Amino acid sequence: MQCLTPARRAAIAPFLAMDVMREALQLRATGRDIIQMEVGAPSAGPPRLAREAAIAALDGRPIGYTDALGLASLRQRIARHYRESYGVDVEPERVAVTTGSSGGFIMAFLALFDAGARVAINCPSYPCYRNILAAFGVETVDLRGLAGVTPEAVAAADDSQKLDGLLLMNPSNPTGALQSDESMRAIADICDKRGIKFISDEIYHGLTYERPARTALAWSQNAVIVNSFSKYYCMTGWRVGWLVVPPGFSRVIERLQQSLAISAPTLSQIAAEAAFDATQDLEAVKAGYAKNRTILLDALDGMGFALAPADGAFYVYADISRFSDNSLSFCKDLLERAGVAATPGVDFDPTQGARAMRFSYAGAQADMIEAMRRLKAFLRR
Amino acid sequence: MQCLTPARRAAIAPFLAMDVMREALQLRATGRDIIQMEVGAPSAGPPRLAREAAIAALDGRPIGYTDALGLASLRQRIARHYRESYGVDVEPERVAVTTGSSGGFIMAFLALFDAGARVAINCPSYPCYRNILAAFGVETVDLRGLAGVTPEAVAAADDSQKLDGLLLMNPSNPTGALQSDESMRAIADICDKRGIKFISDEIYHGLTYERPARTALAWSQNAVIVNSFSKYYCMTGWRVGWLVVPPGFSRVIERLQQSLAISAPTLSQIAAEAAFDATQDLEAVKAGYAKNRTILLDALDGMGFALAPADGAFYVYADISRFSDNSLSFCKDLLERAGVAATPGVDFDPTQGARAMRFSYAGAQADMIEAMRRLKAFLRR
Repeated sequence: MQCLTPARRAAIAPFLAMDVMREALQLRATGRDIIQMEVGAPSAGPPRLAREAAIAALDGRPIGYTDALGLASLRQRIARHYRESYGVDVEPERVAVTTGSSGGFIMAFLALFDAGARVAINCPSYPCYRNILAAFGVETVDLRGLAGVTPEAVAAADDSQKLDGLLLMNPSNPTGALQSDESMRAIADICDKRGIKFISDEIYHGLTYERPARTALAWSQNAVIVNSFSKYYCMTGWRVGWLVVPPGFSRVIERLQQSLAISAPTLSQIAAEAAFDATQDLEAVKAGYAKNRTILLDALDGMGFALAPADGAFYVYADISRFSDNSLSFCKDLLERAGVAATPGVDFDPTQGARAMRFSYAGAQADMIEAMRRLKAFLRR
Repeated sequence: MQCLTPARRAAIAPFLAMDVMREALQLRATGRDIIQMEVGAPSAGPPRLAREAAIAALDGRPIGYTDALGLASLRQRIARHYRESYGVDVEPERVAVTTGSSGGFIMAFLALFDAGARVAINCPSYPCYRNILAAFGVETVDLRGLAGVTPEAVAAADDSQKLDGLLLMNPSNPTGALQSDESMRAIADICDKRGIKFISDEIYHGLTYERPARTALAWSQNAVIVNSFSKYYCMTGWRVGWLVVPPGFSRVIERLQQSLAISAPTLSQIAAEAAFDATQDLEAVKAGYAKNRTILLDALDGMGFALAPADGAFYVYADISRFSDNSLSFCKDLLERAGVAATPGVDFDPTQGARAMRFSYAGAQADMIEAMRRLKAFLRR
């Protein structure tokens, strides 16, 4: 009997935040008191209206597949969200409901890029970009910068390496940096003029603390938008998100979604639609993040960490070079000795991330304060 | 401004059953009385225990990500299912909870096959096999036969075309054909000896009407098993399924799942675990399918359709050549004129499927009787 060998393309890097989460959960199962700051998951429950909508659907009727592109009413509600929140017109036909932003990436990447294509991404950035694209045979080009991506960097990367696409998360995970409107407009222009396919990951929209983020659709009708109910809407485990695609592109996404997903989880779609009306609850959760953010920025700065912008999302990306040049072992020690789970920077930046780490402040305020106390004690040892 | 052009690999065929479903739902929205026999979706609701487990989890606590490979308790419960239902030992570590079987296919295909690989599949078969593999650059080799796949056909295909993998659904969609245990053992042996990666899609297990289906793990520890809570467990729209992978392969799947999915929907995982205890409800649903099956087999035979085996699943695959050589237009007419939605054979078999169609009998008994009445009247015109 021959043993099974994995495909070469399966040799992608782990998503370390998930590995840390597994270890954190295992430690907690042994009775340890662990503060989880490693994954981007709100400690708040789903909005009451979302829960009530799901419960109402659990009355015994079948919970079957929806249309591949999602419930018509949800697609309409998402289109309305663009009008109300951004003043941008989006036809419901352009909206595809996906299985979280993860499902959206799969569909968008396959729809846009063939194997051998070259896509520029922020660096540091969400590690799954690199990993999914690698599994699909697409090369990534790093656009370095803790404060975001400049139009000049996009143009230069295209000049030197001929880009097929640009994938930009704004505000950024892990830094929280929010692009200026001027830079977004200039980047969208460059992409349109040069035929670079522009994917704007707007999953942290709604979570900015100085000024609101604008959708890339304000500047380009060719942009492909990725978004999700996981972050602002506190619905990570529901796995529901959406794409907005250019006119005429919906059928491409529909065909892919039919075969690769069938449809996004139905109960999650029903709950997501209701979540749009839960603004009051969600703004209260956001106010908590704003307080947590201040707590972390003050405490980390006081301890001597150099910090990236943190304009939005719920992350602080900290330079740890005063303390360590190995973020992997630093985070491991912090978890094991101090019971604080955080993500090593190598998850977001394979080279320079060895001297950085990410804290999520989506947890409870008391946990943030205690985590900073533990970190301080940990550093003293 | 240049317009966005799709990637070449996005040019996959539609999943026609989903297209027919969209049309059926649109007709219904206009007030038409449509009987849906096009998608494989039980008309029964989810088991009461599954609903209750979901409702209990909707008490306001966060519904966050789970471990990438799924809730530990669900993975253990699935392992127990193999012991109890098949007498086969499976370590929980080998179980990966996926976003339906669709998510399982994505992970399994990427884990096992590089672009350019060659995988044999039943023909006719579930169209998404061909479509997902095409999007991933994997070639498919058709093993034709309404009664299933023979060991000789597998060996011959490998001799002539050198197979990297075999993907076999048993019982089959669309035919319902159930492989003999002898053929499964011989096929597993051939795959093990020749190093052909063997994926056994067991999504219709539990739904056989003459004898039970056995898992391919009975014959090969190298087999990769795909299964789901959609069919026997009546949980299509919940998007939860699982893989069983060979020892040592879990980390490959875990890495892919971390980046491409994060984790399967949490509420669905909780409900799925409870569904294992809903045997009484589920057997009652199955007894309804058995009656529907008899109704359809009798009626279709009486009308002059030649029928494939229909040993299991909830489908009848009918040869329509007495009536039409164009299943696409035949099904379109049937839907528009008679209000019966069924799937054209070209969905399952791009060449010979023009003279075949598939009926799902997972609906209500009264609908089956009425559909056969309408079909008969439709044929008389």
